[in-house]
Amino acid sequence: MNNPPIILLVEPQLVENIGMTARAMMNTGLRELRLVDPRDPWPLGEVHRQRMAAASSGADAILENAKVFATLEEAIADLNYVYATTGRTHDMVNRIMTPRAATPDMIERSARGEKIGVMFGRERTGLVNDYIVLANAKITIPLNPEFSSLNLAQAVLLIGYEWYQAQEETKSRAPDDYIHTGGSTPATREEYLNFFHRLESSLDEAGFFVAKDMRPSMTRSLQNTLQRAAMTEQEIRTWHGVLSALLGIPKRNRPPEN
Amino acid sequence: MNNPPIILLVEPQLVENIGMTARAMMNTGLRELRLVDPRDPWPLGEVHRQRMAAASSGADAILENAKVFATLEEAIADLNYVYATTGRTHDMVNRIMTPRAATPDMIERSARGEKIGVMFGRERTGLVNDYIVLANAKITIPLNPEFSSLNLAQAVLLIGYEWYQAQEETKSRAPDDYIHTGGSTPATREEYLNFFHRLESSLDEAGFFVAKDMRPSMTRSLQNTLQRAAMTEQEIRTWHGVLSALLGIPKRNRPPEN
Repeated sequence: MNNPPIILLVEPQLVENIGMTARAMMNTGLRELRLVDPRDPWPLGEVHRQRMAAASSGADAILENAKVFATLEEAIADLNYVYATTGRTHDMVNRIMTPRAATPDMIERSARGEKIGVMFGRERTGLVNDYIVLANAKITIPLNPEFSSLNLAQAVLLIGYEWYQAQEETKSRAPDDYIHTGGSTPATREEYLNFFHRLESSLDEAGFFVAKDMRPSMTRSLQNTLQRAAMTEQEIRTWHGVLSALLGIPKRNRPPEN
Repeated sequence: MNNPPIILLVEPQLVENIGMTARAMMNTGLRELRLVDPRDPWPLGEVHRQRMAAASSGADAILENAKVFATLEEAIADLNYVYATTGRTHDMVNRIMTPRAATPDMIERSARGEKIGVMFGRERTGLVNDYIVLANAKITIPLNPEFSSLNLAQAVLLIGYEWYQAQEETKSRAPDDYIHTGGSTPATREEYLNFFHRLESSLDEAGFFVAKDMRPSMTRSLQNTLQRAAMTEQEIRTWHGVLSALLGIPKRNRPPEN
């Protein structure tokens, strides 16, 4: 059995929604829940804990094992591939998939031993661009364009539903359309972010960000391109070497990745 | 456009679930709601009405047009084909379908002008046999057999979701897995190669290719990463700027693409 995607709730505001998410996960065979900076401090007080448990209708196992992180970057550090769910169109260049199209991709990655995650933004506002850019791909659920706002747990349910349905259908199917990694391991989010942060600070020192107000969108755009390339660990090491060479760092002073 | 299935809630106990059902229907393009013998008498008092409206998150149109019936027989009298949703196995001989398998059947019937409906039982107990027997076919949603109890509105959402996805697939539409370029043009092969050659010669000058026999495979690997990112024209220009900044080229001497 493939490891199901890890569900990440970013800044969830209501404990009821966390409980209902656990229920939807249990319904559809998902197991691991991660919470990023939930509104109510963790561990929850007794009143909040009871409200969450009631909403979960008995999905205790998932709630007891839920992990809480202060930042999204920490929460996804060990994952190989992350999907961001979003209902809105953002003018960033990225892969956009329906849940149905994303599921075979998830199954193939999971079968290869990759750790995958799906992240969901906070109620009402969804995922902001700074979070979306940390993902490798975007998932948009096709819904009535005039009324597309879903409850958080319902969005999780639809992702889990597609995952559960596809488990049956793909059991005997060999992967045929994935990025061939030539025996190398896909980079973790942490390896990615380390490289990206190094690039960003090098550019900062080089005076690349001239107009301060352009910096966030410029930074997002660069990060976005790198994510799309879906690099392996080996490739990240190579690009560290590229960066060192361009910066004119002598070999003996370079970080060990080179 | 085909007439979507009519949703029938049989003996719904909580007005919140009626509101959330209306929301799920609106999300997925369903329009007509029928209530059979709801626990709270209809029309609702002000308190119940407000709780229902809050749970519907603005799906007023559906709630205002909802029809209430005393018996299931009356509620389905004008329908040509009725599906009963049930999570349990009943020892009756009947058609049992998954939502995904039922949807083409619904579309076909609807296209022929049949009036179709899907009925949902009351919270916790579901549809009793006396009601199931009034349906033409049964729908069972495949879920984790150890935790298969769904909230009423979520069961409606999954039926509506399958209906909506199937409608989308029959329209002519963009492929569901594409690169969203946010209005920008994908880079031409020439723009790609220009950037790549500039990177390669910069690395050559910087002494990046130490072992001569590794150079071809190293070069291929770098090019490979960049291609996978499927960049736009604008992104190529940005990366020219990155390269110039890293090389420490003063702004006035940079190539015009920056």
